[in-house]
Amino acid sequence: MNGVMNEDSLVAWIKKNAAVPRTRDVVLGIGDDCAILSPRKGEELLLKTDPVIEGVHFTSALPPQAVGARALGRSLSDIAAMGGEPRYCLISLAVGSHHDEAWIKNFFRGLLGLARKTGTVLVGGDLAKSPHETHVNVMLCGAVPIGKALRRDGARGGDALYVSGKLGKPWDRPIQPRLELGRKLRGLATSCMDISDGLSLDLHRLCEASGVGAEIERVPIYKGASLERALNGGEDYELLFTLPPGKPGAAGTTRIGRIVTATAGIYFEGKPLEPRGWDHFERT
Amino acid sequence: MNGVMNEDSLVAWIKKNAAVPRTRDVVLGIGDDCAILSPRKGEELLLKTDPVIEGVHFTSALPPQAVGARALGRSLSDIAAMGGEPRYCLISLAVGSHHDEAWIKNFFRGLLGLARKTGTVLVGGDLAKSPHETHVNVMLCGAVPIGKALRRDGARGGDALYVSGKLGKPWDRPIQPRLELGRKLRGLATSCMDISDGLSLDLHRLCEASGVGAEIERVPIYKGASLERALNGGEDYELLFTLPPGKPGAAGTTRIGRIVTATAGIYFEGKPLEPRGWDHFERT
Repeated sequence: MNGVMNEDSLVAWIKKNAAVPRTRDVVLGIGDDCAILSPRKGEELLLKTDPVIEGVHFTSALPPQAVGARALGRSLSDIAAMGGEPRYCLISLAVGSHHDEAWIKNFFRGLLGLARKTGTVLVGGDLAKSPHETHVNVMLCGAVPIGKALRRDGARGGDALYVSGKLGKPWDRPIQPRLELGRKLRGLATSCMDISDGLSLDLHRLCEASGVGAEIERVPIYKGASLERALNGGEDYELLFTLPPGKPGAAGTTRIGRIVTATAGIYFEGKPLEPRGWDHFERT
Repeated sequence: MNGVMNEDSLVAWIKKNAAVPRTRDVVLGIGDDCAILSPRKGEELLLKTDPVIEGVHFTSALPPQAVGARALGRSLSDIAAMGGEPRYCLISLAVGSHHDEAWIKNFFRGLLGLARKTGTVLVGGDLAKSPHETHVNVMLCGAVPIGKALRRDGARGGDALYVSGKLGKPWDRPIQPRLELGRKLRGLATSCMDISDGLSLDLHRLCEASGVGAEIERVPIYKGASLERALNGGEDYELLFTLPPGKPGAAGTTRIGRIVTATAGIYFEGKPLEPRGWDHFERT
Protein backbone atom coordinates (compact mmCIF):
# COMPACT_ATOMS: atom_id res chain seq x y z
CA MET A 1 0.00 0.00 0.00
CA ASN A 2 1.26 3.45 -0.92
CA GLY A 3 2.61 5.06 2.26
CA VAL A 4 1.03 8.42 1.45
CA MET A 5 -2.45 6.93 1.06
CA ASN A 6 -4.69 7.04 4.07
CA GLU A 7 -8.31 6.21 4.74
CA ASP A 8 -9.57 9.81 4.76
CA SER A 9 -7.87 10.72 1.45
CA LEU A 10 -9.21 7.56 -0.21
CA VAL A 11 -12.69 8.38 1.06
CA ALA A 12 -12.31 11.92 -0.35
CA TRP A 13 -11.34 10.45 -3.75
CA ILE A 14 -14.33 8.08 -3.71
CA LYS A 15 -16.68 10.90 -2.67
CA LYS A 16 -15.49 13.03 -5.60
CA ASN A 17 -15.91 10.15 -8.07
CA ALA A 18 -19.26 9.03 -6.66
CA ALA A 19 -20.78 12.35 -7.75
CA VAL A 20 -23.75 11.22 -9.82
CA PRO A 21 -26.78 13.44 -10.44
CA ARG A 22 -28.26 13.84 -6.95
CA THR A 23 -31.96 13.53 -6.42
CA ARG A 24 -33.84 15.13 -3.55
CA ASP A 25 -33.82 11.69 -1.89
CA VAL A 26 -30.20 12.03 -0.80
CA VAL A 27 -30.11 14.47 2.11
CA LEU A 28 -26.54 13.59 3.07
CA GLY A 29 -24.16 11.21 1.28
CA ILE A 30 -20.61 10.08 2.04
CA GLY A 31 -18.77 11.68 4.97
CA ASP A 32 -20.83 11.56 8.17
CA ASP A 33 -21.63 8.75 10.63
CA CYS A 34 -24.61 7.67 8.50
CA ALA A 35 -26.12 8.61 5.17
CA ILE A 36 -29.46 10.46 5.42
CA LEU A 37 -32.14 9.52 2.88
CA SER A 38 -35.62 10.84 2.33
CA PRO A 39 -38.05 8.07 1.29
CA ARG A 40 -40.60 8.92 -1.43
CA LYS A 41 -44.32 8.78 -0.77
CA GLY A 42 -46.17 5.68 -1.93
CA GLU A 43 -43.11 3.44 -1.90
CA GLU A 44 -41.80 0.57 0.11
CA LEU A 45 -38.08 0.00 0.56
CA LEU A 46 -36.09 -3.06 -0.46
CA LEU A 47 -32.93 -3.90 1.48
CA LYS A 48 -30.28 -6.38 0.43
CA THR A 49 -26.70 -7.20 1.34
CA ASP A 50 -24.39 -9.47 -0.62
CA PRO A 51 -20.74 -10.39 -0.16
CA VAL A 52 -18.11 -10.90 -2.85
CA ILE A 53 -15.07 -12.73 -1.52
CA GLU A 54 -11.73 -13.24 -3.29
CA GLY A 55 -11.15 -16.96 -3.81
CA VAL A 56 -14.87 -17.72 -3.38
CA HIS A 57 -16.77 -15.39 -5.72
CA PHE A 58 -13.85 -14.19 -7.84
CA THR A 59 -10.17 -15.01 -8.42
CA SER A 60 -7.28 -12.58 -7.91
CA ALA A 61 -6.87 -12.54 -11.70
CA LEU A 62 -10.24 -10.83 -12.28
CA PRO A 63 -9.61 -7.15 -13.12
CA PRO A 64 -10.65 -4.80 -10.29
CA GLN A 65 -13.19 -2.99 -12.47
CA ALA A 66 -14.93 -6.34 -13.04
CA VAL A 67 -14.84 -7.14 -9.31
CA GLY A 68 -16.49 -3.79 -8.55
CA ALA A 69 -19.18 -4.22 -11.18
CA ARG A 70 -19.80 -7.82 -10.05
CA ALA A 71 -20.16 -6.80 -6.39
CA LEU A 72 -22.87 -4.27 -7.20
CA GLY A 73 -24.42 -6.40 -9.96
CA ARG A 74 -25.21 -9.27 -7.60
CA SER A 75 -27.32 -7.04 -5.35
CA LEU A 76 -28.90 -5.23 -8.29
CA SER A 77 -30.09 -8.63 -9.50
CA ASP A 78 -31.96 -9.09 -6.21
CA ILE A 79 -33.63 -5.69 -6.56
CA ALA A 80 -34.62 -6.69 -10.11
CA ALA A 81 -36.09 -9.95 -8.78
CA MET A 82 -38.41 -7.93 -6.51
CA GLY A 83 -39.51 -5.66 -9.37
CA GLY A 84 -37.74 -2.73 -7.70
CA GLU A 85 -35.64 0.25 -8.69
CA PRO A 86 -32.20 0.62 -7.12
CA ARG A 87 -31.67 3.84 -5.16
CA TYR A 88 -28.69 3.94 -2.77
CA CYS A 89 -25.75 1.71 -1.95
CA LEU A 90 -23.07 1.49 0.70
CA ILE A 91 -19.83 -0.40 0.08
CA SER A 92 -17.71 -2.11 2.70
CA LEU A 93 -14.31 -2.96 1.19
CA ALA A 94 -11.77 -4.96 3.22
CA VAL A 95 -8.86 -5.09 0.83
CA GLY A 96 -6.00 -7.60 0.93
CA SER A 97 -2.49 -6.13 1.14
CA HIS A 98 -1.59 -7.70 -2.24
CA HIS A 99 -3.77 -5.01 -3.84
CA ASP A 100 -2.58 -1.41 -4.13
CA GLU A 101 -4.21 1.99 -4.35
CA ALA A 102 -4.70 1.63 -8.12
CA TRP A 103 -6.61 -1.62 -7.55
CA ILE A 104 -8.93 0.09 -5.07
CA LYS A 105 -9.59 3.02 -7.40
CA ASN A 106 -10.24 0.73 -10.37
CA PHE A 107 -12.56 -1.35 -8.23
CA PHE A 108 -14.59 1.79 -7.51
CA ARG A 109 -14.44 2.87 -11.17
CA GLY A 110 -16.07 -0.43 -12.17
CA LEU A 111 -18.65 -0.27 -9.42
CA LEU A 112 -19.53 3.39 -10.02
CA GLY A 113 -19.87 2.79 -13.77
CA LEU A 114 -22.65 0.25 -13.15
CA ALA A 115 -24.11 2.50 -10.42
CA ARG A 116 -24.44 5.38 -12.88
CA LYS A 117 -26.03 3.15 -15.53
CA THR A 118 -28.67 1.91 -13.09
CA GLY A 119 -29.40 5.12 -11.16
CA THR A 120 -27.78 3.87 -7.94
CA VAL A 121 -26.14 6.50 -5.71
CA LEU A 122 -23.17 5.53 -3.54
CA VAL A 123 -23.96 7.17 -0.19
CA GLY A 124 -21.48 5.61 2.21
CA GLY A 125 -19.47 2.61 3.30
CA ASP A 126 -16.24 1.58 4.96
CA LEU A 127 -12.63 0.90 3.98
CA ALA A 128 -10.43 -1.51 5.90
CA LYS A 129 -7.45 -3.76 5.31
CA SER A 130 -8.04 -7.49 5.22
CA PRO A 131 -5.35 -9.81 6.65
CA HIS A 132 -5.78 -12.15 3.65
CA GLU A 133 -8.21 -12.13 0.75
CA THR A 134 -10.36 -9.16 -0.24
CA HIS A 135 -13.95 -9.08 1.01
CA VAL A 136 -16.51 -6.76 -0.52
CA ASN A 137 -19.96 -6.23 0.93
CA VAL A 138 -22.57 -4.25 -0.90
CA MET A 139 -25.59 -2.91 0.95
CA LEU A 140 -28.27 -1.90 -1.49
CA CYS A 141 -31.51 -0.03 -0.90
CA GLY A 142 -34.17 -0.07 -3.60
CA ALA A 143 -37.79 1.00 -3.80
CA VAL A 144 -41.04 -0.37 -5.17
CA PRO A 145 -44.60 1.02 -5.22
CA ILE A 146 -46.46 -0.07 -2.07
CA GLY A 147 -47.66 -3.67 -2.30
CA LYS A 148 -46.11 -4.27 -5.73
CA ALA A 149 -42.94 -6.17 -4.78
CA LEU A 150 -42.49 -9.52 -6.53
CA ARG A 151 -42.05 -12.22 -3.92
CA ARG A 152 -41.13 -15.88 -4.14
CA ASP A 153 -44.13 -17.13 -2.15
CA GLY A 154 -46.95 -16.49 -4.63
CA ALA A 155 -46.62 -19.29 -7.22
CA ARG A 156 -49.88 -21.27 -7.71
CA GLY A 157 -50.76 -24.59 -9.32
CA GLY A 158 -51.14 -24.23 -13.10
CA ASP A 159 -48.87 -21.17 -13.34
CA ALA A 160 -46.37 -21.23 -16.19
CA LEU A 161 -42.70 -21.21 -15.13
CA TYR A 162 -40.27 -18.90 -16.93
CA VAL A 163 -36.62 -17.91 -16.92
CA SER A 164 -34.94 -14.94 -18.57
CA GLY A 165 -31.86 -15.37 -20.80
CA LYS A 166 -29.82 -18.56 -20.95
CA LEU A 167 -28.52 -20.66 -18.06
CA GLY A 168 -25.03 -21.99 -17.41
CA LYS A 169 -23.11 -18.81 -18.23
CA PRO A 170 -19.41 -18.59 -17.33
CA TRP A 171 -19.10 -17.33 -13.74
CA ASP A 172 -16.86 -14.37 -14.67
CA ARG A 173 -19.22 -12.93 -17.27
CA PRO A 174 -20.43 -9.42 -16.41
CA ILE A 175 -23.74 -9.53 -14.54
CA GLN A 176 -26.58 -7.82 -16.38
CA PRO A 177 -29.21 -7.26 -13.71
CA ARG A 178 -32.70 -7.75 -15.21
CA LEU A 179 -34.05 -4.49 -13.79
CA GLU A 180 -36.25 -3.63 -16.76
CA LEU A 181 -37.81 -7.10 -16.89
CA GLY A 182 -38.41 -7.07 -13.13
CA ARG A 183 -40.32 -3.78 -13.37
CA LYS A 184 -42.37 -5.10 -16.30
CA LEU A 185 -43.38 -8.18 -14.29
CA ARG A 186 -44.96 -6.08 -11.50
CA GLY A 187 -48.66 -6.86 -11.33
CA LEU A 188 -48.18 -9.78 -13.76
CA ALA A 189 -45.92 -12.40 -12.19
CA THR A 190 -47.29 -14.40 -9.27
CA SER A 191 -43.75 -15.05 -8.01
CA CYS A 192 -40.20 -14.10 -8.94
CA MET A 193 -36.64 -14.58 -7.72
CA ASP A 194 -33.18 -14.40 -9.22
CA ILE A 195 -31.11 -17.48 -10.00
CA SER A 196 -27.86 -17.03 -8.12
CA ASP A 197 -27.20 -20.50 -6.70
CA GLY A 198 -28.39 -22.57 -9.69
CA LEU A 199 -31.84 -23.36 -11.14
CA SER A 200 -32.37 -26.62 -9.23
CA LEU A 201 -31.63 -25.12 -5.78
CA ASP A 202 -33.32 -21.77 -6.39
CA LEU A 203 -36.47 -23.36 -7.87
CA HIS A 204 -36.65 -25.61 -4.80
CA ARG A 205 -36.58 -22.45 -2.67
CA LEU A 206 -39.34 -20.82 -4.72
CA CYS A 207 -41.49 -23.97 -4.53
CA GLU A 208 -40.92 -24.30 -0.78
CA ALA A 209 -41.86 -20.65 -0.17
CA SER A 210 -45.00 -21.04 -2.30
CA GLY A 211 -45.93 -24.53 -1.03
CA VAL A 212 -46.00 -26.04 -4.54
CA GLY A 213 -44.06 -28.37 -6.84
CA ALA A 214 -42.78 -27.83 -10.38
CA GLU A 215 -42.28 -29.69 -13.63
CA ILE A 216 -39.45 -28.52 -15.89
CA GLU A 217 -39.83 -29.42 -19.58
CA ARG A 218 -36.92 -27.54 -21.12
CA VAL A 219 -34.00 -25.32 -20.14
CA PRO A 220 -32.43 -22.58 -22.32
CA ILE A 221 -28.73 -23.47 -22.22
CA TYR A 222 -25.96 -20.91 -22.71
CA LYS A 223 -23.82 -21.68 -25.77
CA GLY A 224 -21.08 -24.14 -24.83
CA ALA A 225 -22.49 -24.94 -21.38
CA SER A 226 -23.56 -28.41 -20.27
CA LEU A 227 -27.10 -29.30 -19.17
CA GLU A 228 -25.63 -30.14 -15.75
CA ARG A 229 -24.23 -26.61 -15.45
CA ALA A 230 -27.46 -25.01 -16.68
CA LEU A 231 -29.43 -26.94 -14.03
CA ASN A 232 -27.02 -26.81 -11.10
CA GLY A 233 -24.42 -24.11 -11.76
CA GLY A 234 -24.59 -20.83 -9.91
CA GLU A 235 -23.96 -17.21 -10.83
CA ASP A 236 -26.56 -16.94 -13.61
CA TYR A 237 -28.37 -13.85 -12.28
CA GLU A 238 -31.38 -14.44 -14.49
CA LEU A 239 -34.96 -14.13 -13.26
CA LEU A 240 -37.06 -17.19 -12.45
CA PHE A 241 -40.76 -16.30 -12.38
CA THR A 242 -44.27 -17.63 -12.68
CA LEU A 243 -47.19 -16.27 -14.70
CA PRO A 244 -50.88 -17.21 -14.40
CA PRO A 245 -52.06 -19.56 -17.19
CA GLY A 246 -52.69 -17.76 -20.46
CA LYS A 247 -50.49 -14.71 -19.81
CA PRO A 248 -47.84 -14.31 -22.51
CA GLY A 249 -44.16 -14.24 -21.44
CA ALA A 250 -41.94 -11.21 -22.02
CA ALA A 251 -39.28 -10.83 -24.74
CA GLY A 252 -36.04 -12.63 -23.89
CA THR A 253 -37.72 -15.13 -21.61
CA THR A 254 -38.43 -18.86 -22.02
CA ARG A 255 -41.31 -20.91 -20.65
CA ILE A 256 -39.48 -23.85 -19.02
CA GLY A 257 -42.38 -25.68 -17.40
CA ARG A 258 -45.23 -25.28 -14.94
CA ILE A 259 -46.18 -25.20 -11.28
CA VAL A 260 -47.99 -28.25 -9.92
CA THR A 261 -49.71 -28.97 -6.65
CA ALA A 262 -50.46 -32.68 -7.03
CA THR A 263 -46.85 -33.59 -6.17
CA ALA A 264 -44.22 -31.93 -4.03
CA GLY A 265 -40.69 -31.43 -5.34
CA ILE A 266 -39.37 -30.68 -8.80
CA TYR A 267 -39.41 -32.92 -11.87
CA PHE A 268 -37.26 -32.54 -14.97
CA GLU A 269 -38.27 -34.59 -18.00
CA GLY A 270 -40.40 -36.70 -15.67
CA LYS A 271 -37.62 -37.51 -13.16
CA PRO A 272 -37.12 -35.91 -9.72
CA LEU A 273 -34.56 -33.08 -9.77
CA GLU A 274 -32.59 -32.75 -6.54
CA PRO A 275 -31.50 -29.31 -5.37
CA ARG A 276 -27.80 -29.44 -6.21
CA GLY A 277 -26.90 -25.79 -6.73
CA TRP A 278 -24.39 -23.81 -4.79
CA ASP A 279 -24.55 -24.07 -1.00
CA HIS A 280 -21.82 -22.06 0.68
CA PHE A 281 -21.70 -24.42 3.61
CA GLU A 282 -21.82 -27.77 1.82
CA ARG A 283 -19.71 -27.18 -1.23
CA THR A 284 -16.69 -25.22 -0.06
CA MET B 1 -18.37 -27.63 9.85
CA ASN B 2 -21.08 -30.16 10.73
CA GLY B 3 -21.84 -32.11 7.56
CA VAL B 4 -25.60 -31.98 8.14
CA MET B 5 -25.59 -28.20 8.37
CA ASN B 6 -26.37 -26.28 5.24
CA GLU B 7 -27.04 -22.69 4.38
CA ASP B 8 -30.83 -23.01 4.15
CA SER B 9 -31.16 -24.80 7.50
CA LEU B 10 -28.93 -22.22 9.20
CA VAL B 11 -31.03 -19.43 7.70
CA ALA B 12 -34.16 -21.17 9.00
CA TRP B 13 -32.63 -21.31 12.49
CA ILE B 14 -31.70 -17.63 12.37
CA LYS B 15 -35.15 -16.68 11.10
CA LYS B 16 -36.78 -18.51 14.00
CA ASN B 17 -34.48 -16.86 16.54
CA ALA B 18 -34.74 -13.41 14.98
CA ALA B 19 -38.45 -13.34 15.83
CA VAL B 20 -38.76 -10.08 17.76
CA PRO B 21 -42.07 -8.24 18.12
CA ARG B 22 -42.82 -7.18 14.54
CA THR B 23 -43.99 -3.69 13.80
CA ARG B 24 -46.05 -2.75 10.79
CA ASP B 25 -42.79 -1.41 9.27
CA VAL B 26 -41.56 -4.89 8.37
CA VAL B 27 -43.58 -6.07 5.38
CA LEU B 28 -41.26 -9.01 4.67
CA GLY B 29 -38.22 -10.13 6.68
CA ILE B 30 -35.71 -12.94 6.18
CA GLY B 31 -36.25 -15.39 3.30
CA ASP B 32 -36.79 -13.59 -0.01
CA ASP B 33 -34.40 -11.80 -2.39
CA CYS B 34 -34.74 -8.56 -0.40
CA ALA B 35 -36.43 -7.44 2.80
CA ILE B 36 -39.45 -5.15 2.28
CA LEU B 37 -39.83 -2.24 4.68
CA SER B 38 -42.50 0.41 4.97
CA PRO B 39 -41.01 3.80 5.98
CA ARG B 40 -42.98 5.89 8.51
CA LYS B 41 -44.34 9.32 7.64
CA GLY B 42 -42.33 12.32 8.79
CA GLU B 43 -39.05 10.45 9.03
CA GLU B 44 -35.76 10.34 7.20
CA LEU B 45 -33.71 7.17 7.01
CA LEU B 46 -30.17 6.64 8.26
CA LEU B 47 -28.00 4.03 6.54
CA LYS B 48 -24.73 2.66 7.85
CA THR B 49 -22.46 -0.30 7.19
CA ASP B 50 -19.58 -1.40 9.38
CA PRO B 51 -17.24 -4.37 9.16
CA VAL B 52 -15.85 -6.45 12.01
CA ILE B 53 -12.87 -8.53 10.94
CA GLU B 54 -11.17 -11.29 12.93
CA GLY B 55 -7.56 -10.30 13.61
CA VAL B 56 -8.34 -6.62 13.01
CA HIS B 57 -11.38 -5.74 15.13
CA PHE B 58 -11.41 -8.81 17.36
CA THR B 59 -9.23 -11.82 18.22
CA SER B 60 -10.23 -15.45 17.77
CA ALA B 61 -10.33 -15.69 21.59
CA LEU B 62 -13.29 -13.30 21.90
CA PRO B 63 -16.46 -15.34 22.63
CA PRO B 64 -18.84 -15.45 19.65
CA GLN B 65 -21.67 -13.78 21.61
CA ALA B 66 -19.34 -10.81 22.20
CA VAL B 67 -18.35 -10.72 18.51
CA GLY B 68 -22.03 -10.61 17.52
CA ALA B 69 -22.89 -7.87 20.01
CA ARG B 70 -19.79 -5.89 18.99
CA ALA B 71 -20.64 -6.12 15.27
CA LEU B 72 -24.10 -4.65 15.82
CA GLY B 73 -22.95 -2.25 18.57
CA ARG B 74 -20.51 -0.44 16.27
CA SER B 75 -23.26 0.47 13.80
CA LEU B 76 -25.74 1.28 16.58
CA SER B 77 -23.19 3.81 17.85
CA ASP B 78 -23.33 5.58 14.47
CA ILE B 79 -27.14 5.72 14.59
CA ALA B 80 -26.85 7.16 18.12
CA ALA B 81 -24.38 9.79 16.81
CA MET B 82 -27.02 11.00 14.34
CA GLY B 83 -29.72 11.18 17.04
CA GLY B 84 -31.56 8.31 15.37
CA GLU B 85 -33.49 5.22 16.37
CA PRO B 86 -32.35 1.87 14.99
CA ARG B 87 -34.95 -0.03 12.95
CA TYR B 88 -33.68 -2.86 10.73
CA CYS B 89 -30.40 -4.66 10.18
CA LEU B 90 -28.96 -7.13 7.71
CA ILE B 91 -25.96 -9.29 8.58
CA SER B 92 -23.37 -10.62 6.16
CA LEU B 93 -21.31 -13.31 7.89
CA ALA B 94 -18.34 -14.89 6.11
CA VAL B 95 -17.19 -17.41 8.67
CA GLY B 96 -13.73 -18.99 8.85
CA SER B 97 -13.63 -22.80 8.78
CA HIS B 98 -12.04 -22.84 12.27
CA HIS B 99 -15.47 -21.90 13.62
CA ASP B 100 -18.31 -24.43 13.84
CA GLU B 101 -22.08 -24.32 13.85
CA ALA B 102 -22.17 -23.59 17.59
CA TRP B 103 -19.95 -20.55 17.03
CA ILE B 104 -22.31 -19.22 14.36
CA LYS B 105 -25.38 -19.72 16.53
CA ASN B 106 -23.73 -18.08 19.54
CA PHE B 107 -22.64 -15.19 17.33
CA PHE B 108 -26.28 -14.65 16.39
CA ARG B 109 -27.43 -15.08 20.01
CA GLY B 110 -25.13 -12.21 21.03
CA LEU B 111 -26.17 -10.05 18.13
CA LEU B 112 -29.90 -10.72 18.54
CA GLY B 113 -29.71 -10.00 22.28
CA LEU B 114 -28.50 -6.47 21.59
CA ALA B 115 -30.97 -6.15 18.69
CA ARG B 116 -33.87 -6.94 21.02
CA LYS B 117 -32.66 -4.46 23.66
CA THR B 118 -32.44 -1.66 21.11
CA GLY B 119 -35.55 -2.38 19.02
CA THR B 120 -33.56 -3.46 15.96
CA VAL B 121 -35.15 -6.12 13.73
CA LEU B 122 -32.94 -8.53 11.76
CA VAL B 123 -34.56 -8.61 8.31
CA GLY B 124 -31.97 -10.31 6.12
CA GLY B 125 -28.34 -10.97 5.28
CA ASP B 126 -26.01 -13.56 3.86
CA LEU B 127 -24.01 -16.54 5.07
CA ALA B 128 -20.78 -17.63 3.38
CA LYS B 129 -17.57 -19.41 4.23
CA SER B 130 -14.40 -17.34 4.42
CA PRO B 131 -11.10 -18.89 3.25
CA HIS B 132 -9.31 -17.44 6.29
CA GLU B 133 -10.51 -15.12 9.06
CA THR B 134 -14.15 -14.33 9.81
CA HIS B 135 -15.60 -11.14 8.33
CA VAL B 136 -18.85 -9.69 9.62
CA ASN B 137 -20.64 -6.82 7.95
CA VAL B 138 -23.62 -5.18 9.54
CA MET B 139 -25.95 -3.05 7.48
CA LEU B 140 -28.11 -0.92 9.71
CA CYS B 141 -31.10 1.25 8.87
CA GLY B 142 -32.30 3.79 11.39
CA ALA B 143 -34.76 6.66 11.34
CA VAL B 144 -34.92 10.24 12.56
CA PRO B 145 -37.64 12.94 12.34
CA ILE B 146 -37.21 14.94 9.13
CA GLY B 147 -34.42 17.51 9.42
CA LYS B 148 -33.46 16.50 12.96
CA ALA B 149 -30.38 14.33 12.29
CA LEU B 150 -27.24 15.36 14.17
CA ARG B 151 -24.43 15.97 11.70
CA ARG B 152 -20.75 16.63 12.10
CA ASP B 153 -20.70 19.79 9.99
CA GLY B 154 -22.58 22.21 12.27
CA ALA B 155 -20.03 23.17 14.97
CA ARG B 156 -19.57 26.95 15.34
CA GLY B 157 -17.00 29.17 17.04
CA GLY B 158 -17.72 29.53 20.76
CA ASP B 159 -19.59 26.20 21.01
CA ALA B 160 -18.70 24.07 24.01
CA LEU B 161 -17.15 20.68 23.18
CA TYR B 162 -18.39 17.58 25.04
CA VAL B 163 -17.81 13.85 25.21
CA SER B 164 -19.95 11.16 26.84
CA GLY B 165 -18.45 8.64 29.27
CA LYS B 166 -14.70 8.06 29.67
CA LEU B 167 -12.11 7.63 26.93
CA GLY B 168 -9.41 4.96 26.55
CA LYS B 169 -11.59 1.95 27.36
CA PRO B 170 -10.24 -1.57 26.68
CA TRP B 171 -11.05 -2.52 23.08
CA ASP B 172 -12.90 -5.72 24.02
CA ARG B 173 -15.34 -4.05 26.42
CA PRO B 174 -18.98 -4.40 25.36
CA ILE B 175 -20.10 -1.42 23.30
CA GLN B 176 -22.93 0.54 24.90
CA PRO B 177 -24.33 2.61 22.04
CA ARG B 178 -25.41 6.03 23.35
CA LEU B 179 -28.84 5.90 21.74
CA GLU B 180 -30.69 7.67 24.54
CA LEU B 181 -28.16 10.53 24.70
CA GLY B 182 -28.21 10.91 20.91
CA ARG B 183 -32.00 11.30 20.91
CA LYS B 184 -31.79 13.85 23.77
CA LEU B 185 -29.29 15.94 21.80
CA ARG B 186 -31.68 16.39 18.85
CA GLY B 187 -32.45 20.08 18.50
CA LEU B 188 -29.75 20.94 21.06
CA ALA B 189 -26.34 19.89 19.72
CA THR B 190 -24.89 21.85 16.79
CA SER B 191 -22.78 18.83 15.77
CA CYS B 192 -22.27 15.24 16.88
CA MET B 193 -20.32 12.13 15.90
CA ASP B 194 -19.17 8.97 17.62
CA ILE B 195 -15.56 8.37 18.63
CA SER B 196 -14.55 5.13 16.94
CA ASP B 197 -11.04 5.91 15.68
CA GLY B 198 -9.81 7.94 18.68
CA LEU B 199 -10.56 11.48 19.94
CA SER B 200 -7.68 13.20 18.10
CA LEU B 201 -8.56 11.80 14.67
CA ASP B 202 -12.34 12.00 15.04
CA LEU B 203 -12.24 15.57 16.39
CA HIS B 204 -10.08 16.53 13.40
CA ARG B 205 -12.81 15.08 11.16
CA LEU B 206 -15.54 17.03 12.97
CA CYS B 207 -13.52 20.27 12.78
CA GLU B 208 -12.77 19.74 9.08
CA ALA B 209 -16.45 19.08 8.28
CA SER B 210 -17.50 22.19 10.23
CA GLY B 211 -14.59 24.41 9.05
CA VAL B 212 -13.46 25.22 12.59
CA GLY B 213 -10.67 24.51 15.10
CA ALA B 214 -10.87 23.25 18.68
CA GLU B 215 -9.16 23.68 22.02
CA ILE B 216 -9.22 20.73 24.40
CA GLU B 217 -8.77 21.58 28.08
CA ARG B 218 -9.38 18.23 29.73
CA VAL B 219 -10.19 14.61 28.84
CA PRO B 220 -12.17 12.16 31.01
CA ILE B 221 -9.86 9.13 31.19
CA TYR B 222 -11.10 5.59 31.73
CA LYS B 223 -9.72 4.08 34.95
CA GLY B 224 -6.30 2.54 34.28
CA ALA B 225 -5.93 4.00 30.77
CA SER B 226 -3.14 6.35 29.73
CA LEU B 227 -3.71 9.89 28.46
CA GLU B 228 -2.14 8.75 25.16
CA ARG B 229 -4.77 6.04 24.81
CA ALA B 230 -7.62 8.38 25.79
CA LEU B 231 -6.49 10.85 23.10
CA ASN B 232 -5.46 8.49 20.32
CA GLY B 233 -6.91 5.04 21.04
CA GLY B 234 -9.86 3.78 19.05
CA GLU B 235 -12.97 1.77 19.88
CA ASP B 236 -14.42 4.15 22.50
CA TYR B 237 -17.90 4.46 20.93
CA GLU B 238 -18.72 7.54 22.98
CA LEU B 239 -20.38 10.64 21.52
CA LEU B 240 -18.38 13.78 20.69
CA PHE B 241 -20.69 16.79 20.36
CA THR B 242 -20.92 20.56 20.51
CA LEU B 243 -23.47 22.73 22.29
CA PRO B 244 -24.08 26.46 21.81
CA PRO B 245 -22.58 28.63 24.61
CA GLY B 246 -24.70 28.62 27.77
CA LYS B 247 -26.52 25.30 27.13
CA PRO B 248 -25.96 22.82 29.99
CA GLY B 249 -24.48 19.41 29.12
CA ALA B 250 -26.38 16.18 29.72
CA ALA B 251 -25.80 13.71 32.58
CA GLY B 252 -22.80 11.44 31.98
CA THR B 253 -21.06 13.90 29.69
CA THR B 254 -17.99 16.09 30.22
CA ARG B 255 -17.20 19.51 28.76
CA ILE B 256 -13.69 18.96 27.35
CA GLY B 257 -13.09 22.28 25.61
CA ARG B 258 -14.45 24.63 22.98
CA ILE B 259 -14.71 25.30 19.28
CA VAL B 260 -12.56 28.15 17.93
CA THR B 261 -12.41 29.88 14.56
CA ALA B 262 -9.35 32.11 15.07
CA THR B 263 -6.99 29.14 14.47
CA ALA B 264 -7.32 25.98 12.41
CA GLY B 265 -6.44 22.61 13.93
CA ILE B 266 -6.80 21.23 17.41
CA TYR B 267 -4.95 22.28 20.53
CA PHE B 268 -4.62 20.31 23.75
CA GLU B 269 -3.33 22.20 26.80
CA GLY B 270 -2.11 24.90 24.45
CA LYS B 271 -0.12 22.60 22.11
CA PRO B 272 -1.18 21.35 18.65
CA LEU B 273 -2.72 17.86 18.77
CA GLU B 274 -2.03 15.81 15.67
CA PRO B 275 -4.67 13.34 14.41
CA ARG B 276 -3.09 10.06 15.49
CA GLY B 277 -6.08 7.79 15.91
CA TRP B 278 -6.78 4.59 14.06
CA ASP B 279 -6.36 4.69 10.28
CA HIS B 280 -7.01 1.31 8.68
CA PHE B 281 -4.62 2.06 5.87
CA GLU B 282 -1.72 3.59 7.80
CA ARG B 283 -1.63 1.54 10.94
CA THR B 284 -2.17 -2.06 9.89
